[in-house]
Order: sequence, then structure tokens, then C-alpha cells
Amino acid sequence: MTVNSSHQLWIYDTTLRDGTQREGLSVSLEDKLRIARKLDELGIPFIEGGWPGANPKDVQLFWQLQEQPLTQAQIVAFCSTRRPLQKASSEPMLQAILASGTLWVTIFGKSWDLHVTEGLKTSLAENLEMIRDTIEYLRSQGRRVIYDAEHWFDGYKHNADYALQTLKTAIDAGAEWLVLCDTNGGTLPHEVSQIVTDVIESCPQDVQLGIHTHNDSDTAIANALAGVMAGVKMVQGTINGYGERCGNANLCSLIPNLQLKLGYKCIADNKLSNLTEASRFVSEVVNLAPDEHAPFVGRSAFAHKGGIHVSAVQKNPLTYEHIEPETVGNSRRIVISEQAGVSNVLAKASGFGIELDKNHSATREILQLLKQLESEGYQFEAAEASFELLMREALQTRPSFFQVKGFQIHCDLGKGLETTKALATVKVAVKNQDIWEAAEGNGPVAALDAALRKALVKFYPQIDTFKLTDYKVRILNGHTGTSATTRAMVELGNGQQRWTTIGVSNNILEASYQAVVEGLEYGLIKHCQVDSPLKVFE
Amino acid sequence: MTVNSSHQLWIYDTTLRDGTQREGLSVSLEDKLRIARKLDELGIPFIEGGWPGANPKDVQLFWQLQEQPLTQAQIVAFCSTRRPLQKASSEPMLQAILASGTLWVTIFGKSWDLHVTEGLKTSLAENLEMIRDTIEYLRSQGRRVIYDAEHWFDGYKHNADYALQTLKTAIDAGAEWLVLCDTNGGTLPHEVSQIVTDVIESCPQDVQLGIHTHNDSDTAIANALAGVMAGVKMVQGTINGYGERCGNANLCSLIPNLQLKLGYKCIADNKLSNLTEASRFVSEVVNLAPDEHAPFVGRSAFAHKGGIHVSAVQKNPLTYEHIEPETVGNSRRIVISEQAGVSNVLAKASGFGIELDKNHSATREILQLLKQLESEGYQFEAAEASFELLMREALQTRPSFFQVKGFQIHCDLGKGLETTKALATVKVAVKNQDIWEAAEGNGPVAALDAALRKALVKFYPQIDTFKLTDYKVRILNGHTGTSATTRAMVELGNGQQRWTTIGVSNNILEASYQAVVEGLEYGLIKHCQVDSPLKVFE
Repeated sequence: MTVNSSHQLWIYDTTLRDGTQREGLSVSLEDKLRIARKLDELGIPFIEGGWPGANPKDVQLFWQLQEQPLTQAQIVAFCSTRRPLQKASSEPMLQAILASGTLWVTIFGKSWDLHVTEGLKTSLAENLEMIRDTIEYLRSQGRRVIYDAEHWFDGYKHNADYALQTLKTAIDAGAEWLVLCDTNGGTLPHEVSQIVTDVIESCPQDVQLGIHTHNDSDTAIANALAGVMAGVKMVQGTINGYGERCGNANLCSLIPNLQLKLGYKCIADNKLSNLTEASRFVSEVVNLAPDEHAPFVGRSAFAHKGGIHVSAVQKNPLTYEHIEPETVGNSRRIVISEQAGVSNVLAKASGFGIELDKNHSATREILQLLKQLESEGYQFEAAEASFELLMREALQTRPSFFQVKGFQIHCDLGKGLETTKALATVKVAVKNQDIWEAAEGNGPVAALDAALRKALVKFYPQIDTFKLTDYKVRILNGHTGTSATTRAMVELGNGQQRWTTIGVSNNILEASYQAVVEGLEYGLIKHCQVDSPLKVFE
Repeated sequence: MTVNSSHQLWIYDTTLRDGTQREGLSVSLEDKLRIARKLDELGIPFIEGGWPGANPKDVQLFWQLQEQPLTQAQIVAFCSTRRPLQKASSEPMLQAILASGTLWVTIFGKSWDLHVTEGLKTSLAENLEMIRDTIEYLRSQGRRVIYDAEHWFDGYKHNADYALQTLKTAIDAGAEWLVLCDTNGGTLPHEVSQIVTDVIESCPQDVQLGIHTHNDSDTAIANALAGVMAGVKMVQGTINGYGERCGNANLCSLIPNLQLKLGYKCIADNKLSNLTEASRFVSEVVNLAPDEHAPFVGRSAFAHKGGIHVSAVQKNPLTYEHIEPETVGNSRRIVISEQAGVSNVLAKASGFGIELDKNHSATREILQLLKQLESEGYQFEAAEASFELLMREALQTRPSFFQVKGFQIHCDLGKGLETTKALATVKVAVKNQDIWEAAEGNGPVAALDAALRKALVKFYPQIDTFKLTDYKVRILNGHTGTSATTRAMVELGNGQQRWTTIGVSNNILEASYQAVVEGLEYGLIKHCQVDSPLKVFE
């Protein structure tokens, strides 16, 4: 990977490492893999997977990605320089890095003298030695190195001379990229411009610089842009700006600014229109409400109210929109007169391999149903199986495998009880028979799932191969307390495929029940298609 | 009001007008008055109250403020220029402005030729006439005028010559301030710098310029800063960045950047420390959850995790904080998390007013319990009330108000049922009595909460003042399906304070139950401390 054109920029995503530092965000290994594959699909060239030396769980991620590699992205392992007065070759953290098997490694080191003497409690010379030794060791093991200069801007302001020495040490040791980090997020854009210009003047001509910014001054995007305009070629950030404290530079804002407004090339133009979907996918996976007011990708980003305004925007969108929403996969939304969206439905259908005609009555019906359900709290971005069922319903191609006629949940809990099992009873109509079954589970949803399977397995033995692989609950309008609307999402898998379904209700049990039932139903449809490739749609 | 010093800036708040354009935000007259008084208290010099011509309810606000004026701020009425081919003196909108009785009026007019010809469907000359006539008329009625040049930056890019004519017309007609508006929010900081510089060169020397930015490019703050650094003297924005689409420039970020980093004077230094409180007050009044990750004023803005990091920040805050949190009325927060060390526990305890000795056996006990609970899925970062209960437990200062001896949940659901209520029965021991109660709710947790309150309110009437304000559920190891561990968080409030508690279990109902019970218990502790300042801890 080398920089071919002066207008090429390299996007480096750190959602899986720095992004997970956000307070309240936690991800499983499975979540991380799903996000990594989504970023790969989007065409992000560098994806930082984690810090295997500090977080043993991250090792698994790299192993899984060795077995099933990404298609185009480089997955990057992250680590600090070795500890003071050790040898890089005997540093356990670095052994964990090598074991993760990535070609690219990002090493962060100290740029700010104060952090060396007060934080690491070592000498300025030893810090340089730590940088040199660590990078040289990784190079000797065939790794390519990105060097993150932590606290770069603060360090440079306090002791420019020493800060520049750390960069030169990293270059001499073989780092291919030097990334200037505003770790505390306190730098303003005009300072970034000045300091990046200074660095470019002080470094050899062929050095490739990057920038990593945080949003503590509410200028993370502008700081990154200032860096690029001063000459850096790599930009680090996270999807949705997730990150410690006030977050990192938001790639969902950075990429369109760079690509649409400044003419840089970051990802393929035809991928840019997947940005909104990627943003919502990631927020669903990490189970955080998407920011509706987020620039470019938020639900309100191109929302228009009021009469004149609306007719003006329809006549000439340029008058009230800074970009065309479709270029980033978002859409204009007319807040009062709810219209537009047929193209959305057509696009979604085509994503499922279903070619819909925009004049087909079912198309309008789906659209109407979709709008109604989304206003109730359904969200189909990450629950495509439920959306497919909805479309099949409208097209009258939804097979009927079973019908749940009722269920009851009973739970007896309280202090002093060791285990608190729940009991579910269900009544299901299958192939003209009414079946009653009961089962116990750790929680009410597990009990319900168990009772349903018990009722259905006699008729559909393949149901035994379906496993519940994920279950997520989100309270929507949280501030109304425990009677708020609840959205449940369930993921099932059969070993080859996975699918996600959704349920929404005031009652958390009802919402979960809807999702579980649709998940089993969708699995049966897929199974039938595999057994006899039934062409359901024209 | 004249500009005395080159370092004085005038902050102009438009929360009550542009801020209320945010989708999902609505305010009553009473809300608007409360916000206006809070802004006045904070020392904001200009407060835009509304657009009485377009929104008749806004008239009331101005009348109320005539009766009980603000202490230092100018309340400003907002209006467009008169309609084409009318007379300003007979324009009803302008009569409404005069009736609102403010000294200052903001008039917005078109800068962009396209909007004149396509939007207003009038001639470029008539638009200039509309600006002139409107401002001259208001001046003749003794008003002082701020002129908002709508779509300034887009207009200037398309037809600089015409855009400048509109400004000159406004100056000649008697406007005292010219505010350059990035109405569509698409402008980037380097363009703002360039265009503001051009304007300053083209206008008479004594013209006072302002800037009004939107966040569609995620650079609203940087754009405003670029304007100031190029010479504007007024900055318009809203509290918490509320506004249409992606919002306006956030004054909670702008003011500290301008005042603490760039040395401008916006509000009195001793008022700056009220900024965090003002931000939260406004979000409470408009009933939107505060953005915890907001720069400067967010709850997470100065949150620190991890042992080394915490001890470093305590030794020298400069190493990990871009400003001192207290200067904006925020505070450093040591996040209680897996990586916690003794120093975290001590810092946290002291935050609750509990002085712990690091050699006290309880300290180690708390630390051990904390680690064990966190490995089970508890997360105290956002559930400080539960953490305080845990500390009280270890210190044997946790009062006993009631004991839940058992509860049952029963739910009867299924297709065809309109509403699916849940029934809860509880057995609670209070003051040596065993109480049985039952209640219904939309979901099982609402039912449980209702039953518990029913049982307790006879003994603790203050429980009626506690409201469930938020309820969150997260499935932890989601990939094990519906028998995964569930974490429930509940927030309660009593009007003055809010507190959050947590419960974890394999059973979602059990987890929610734990959180609800601890929430009620914590509320009772707080209530007792207020009634009789019981010194619980030494």
C-alpha cells in the first residue's frame, strides 16, 4: 500500500479499539466480527481490531479473522511501545501482537516529555529507545508499522524539539506511517494547521503522516480536516464518533466532507451510499440508540418542515441541502406531509434479491406498513429477516408453518431463591392440530423459546438446528419509565446463515415473543428454500 | 452597547427560536420563560425570544418579559423582511414585532440570488428594497436592528457581488450588526475564514459582524471559531446545540473554547462555572435526555477509566484533561469499572462524601466485591446509587427500610389480544409486618413497580414523589441466546435529584426487580438524609 495520488486518503477505523472506550459501550467477540466485516464491505482500508496485549479477549478476534480473512481491509493490531528497561523481544505484549498474525501493527508511544518523566517514570532517552526497539523488533518479524504519536499536539506545544525526536526515531526504526494524535482533544483547528505544517517541514519528504483527533473541544472533524489540508494522508476515526469521553472523529462525517466537499478519495464512490446503513448497523450491534441529529447519516439530517421550505427543496434541493442525501445513503424527509420513500423500499427489496415494480400496489402497501411500523419503533436496518417477512406478507408469498394462538408466562422470584426459573405455556396450531406445550427457562424468553420448539420440532425436525445466537433489548422512549416501548431483536443461526428479527411492544415479553416467533418462521422458510429451491418471487 | 475591547465578543442565544426547530423538541410558554431567565442569569447579552409574526404564541413571551424584565440581557424579537411589493409600515408581521416591545429586533433577509428569484419569486432589486424598507421602518420606530444575512455563505459563493449589495443595503438602512448565516450548514472552516476576510475588506471599517452556523458538516463550532478569528464580534448559537436537522452551534462548546482557549471575553468568568448546570437545566426543561458525551458539559466529558490513567490524572490533571472541569462547572469522574484499583474506589467514595482509608479492611472488601460483581455483568459506571449501596453494605451503614420476600409475575399473551397486561404480586416485610399486594402494568416491570409502591407507600409516603424516569436493558453475552445474562438499569428521580441503580441476572425479570428495589431503597436513604441530616459515615 503506497500513496499513488495526492488526492488519495487512507481511512483508519478504530471503532473496535478506541470506539469501545466509550462509557456504556460494550461489545462481544461476535459483535466485533460483525462490525469488522461491515467496515470491510464499506471499503475502509485499515481496521484496528484491538489491543491483544491488554485485552486477552481481543486475541480471539484476530484468530477468527485469520481463519476467515476480510476481503480487502488490513486488520491492524494495536499495542504500546515496550516497557522501560525491558527488551522488545521478550515483552509479552509484543508476543501477543505477533501471535495475532496481522501484517500491520500500530504502536503508540509518548511524544510529551511530561508523560515520559511523570507517567512512565523514565528518562527521555529511554523513551526514544523504547520506540526504536519496539518498531525495529516488529520490522524484524516482518511486520509493517504505523506509529501513533500519543499526545502529539500537547507534547509539541510543550517541547517541540523532543516531540520531533520521537517521530524521527520512529521513522529511522522503520515505521511507515506517523500518526499525530490529539489524545486529550484540546487542540483547535488553527493549531493543528500550524503544527502539521511544522512537522512536514521538519520531516523527510517521503514521510507519510496521519491524524487522530478527539472531540473534547467539539472540533474533532475540523481538526482532522485541518490536518488533511495541511498534508496528512491518513485519517483515524470511528463510526458514529464513538470513543472515550466526548468521542473520536466521526468517520460518518469525515468521509463525506473529505470526499464530497474537498475532492479527496477515501472509499469507492459507489460505497459512499452505504454509509448511512453502516452507521445504523453499528449502532444496532453495539445497542446504542442512533443519534438522529448526526450530520449526514442521522434520521433528521435532511428533514424539512414547513410549506415554502418544502416546496423550495423539492423544486431545487440545492436551496436547502448542503449535499444530496442519497450520496451518503440517507434520504430527504418531509416532516409534515409524510411522503417519499418508494425508492427506499425498492432499494431494500432489491437488496433481498426481490425485484419490485414501483407501480405494483404491493410496493405502496409495503411502504405504508413500513412507515407505520417505523413510527411505532420498528427498525429494519438490522432486522432484515423481519423486513423480508413483511414484504412476503404484502406479496402474499409468506408461507404459513404454524400459528401461535396464545402463551402464558409465569415467574416466581424473590430473595432467597437460588435460581429463578420462568415457566411458559404455549398453544400453537400446526398442520391443523392444536398443540399445548410447557417448558421452563432461565428467563421468560428462554422458557417461551423452549416451549415453542417443543411444540414445533415434531413437525419440523430441522428446527433443532436453529440456535438463538443473539438477543438484544432496547427501551425506546426510556424517560417514560418501565412502561416505555420496548424493541427486542433476536438473531438465530443454522450453522451456515444467521438472520435477525424484531418485535416491538409496550410489554417486553410481547416484543421478545414476536421476534422469537418470526425468527423460527424465517428459519423454516430458508430451510425450505435450501431443500427445494422454491422461487418465491418473480 | 458598543464593543469596547477587541477581545469582547457578544453571544447571541437563539435556543428559544432556532433551537425549538429541532425535531422532537417542543416547549411551552412557561418553559421558554424559565430558559430565558436562566440564560439571563448566565450573562448571555442577547436572547432571541421568538418570531411573533409567524408564531402568535411567542407574543405572550414578550409581554410577560415586559412585565417582569430580564436583569441584564436584551430580549430580541425575530422577523423576516417585509413581503415583496408591500410597505413595511403596513406589514402585519412588523406590527407584531413592534407590539412585542423589544428594543432590539433581528431581521433576516435573502443574500442568495437564487432564493430571491426562485423562492421569493421577486426581482433582485426588490429584495434590496425589502431589506432597506424593513430596517428603515424599524429604525424610525426607535428599534435597534441586527440583520441576519440568510444563506450568506452559499449566496456569496454563487454571486458575491449581489450578496455584498444586500449587506451594504442593510448597513445604509441602519442595521447595527450584520450576521453571516450558514443556513444550510454546508460550509467548511477554511471557506468561512476566507469569506469573512473578504467581507471585512469590502465593508466600512466600523461595521460589526456576527456569525450563525449550523452543524450539518459537523463543523458548526469550528466555523464559528473561524469567523471570530477572522474578525466577527457576535456569535449566535443555542444551548446544547439544539436546532433544525443537525442543530446549531452549541454555545456550551463555543463559550469555553472562546473564553478559555482563545482569550475572548463572552460571559463573566464567575458565570462560566454555571455552564454545565445551565446545559442540564435546559435539557430538563425541554425534556430531552442530556448528551452524556457532550464536550465540556457532558457527564462523560471528564470521565477517566483505568488504574495508571487515574493515578496520573490525580497527580497532574493537565496530563489527561484539556481544561480544568471545574471552570465550566463540570467535574472529573473516576469511572468504576473492571480495571478499577484501590485509588478508584477511594476517589469514588470521596465523591459520595465518604472518607475511606486505603488500609481499612472494608476498602479491600469493596474492591473485591466490585470486581466479582463486574465479572458477573454489573457495571457501576452509570449506576452510582447501587455502588453507594454496595459501599454502605460493606461499611455496615446500609439502613433497612423493607425486605422483598417474594414476587410473582403472570402474563397472558398471544395473537389476537389487544392489550397484554402483566400482573405482579409481591410479598414485602416492612416494619415487622408482612404485606401482600398485587398490581397490573403494561409490562412485567411496570406491574412489579406498581405492586411494590402499593405495598410501601403506607409506610413511606415520600415514595409517591419518586418517579421512574428511565429504564434500560442490555443483554450481555448475547450470543448465548435468550438465556444470556441481562443487565437492567433503572433511573428514578424526586424532582431535585436523579439516581440510577442496576440489577443483573439470567432472568430479565429478576434483573429488573433488583434495580427497581434498589432504586426505591436509595430514594428513601436520600430522603432521610434530607429530613434529618443523619451522619451515616464517619
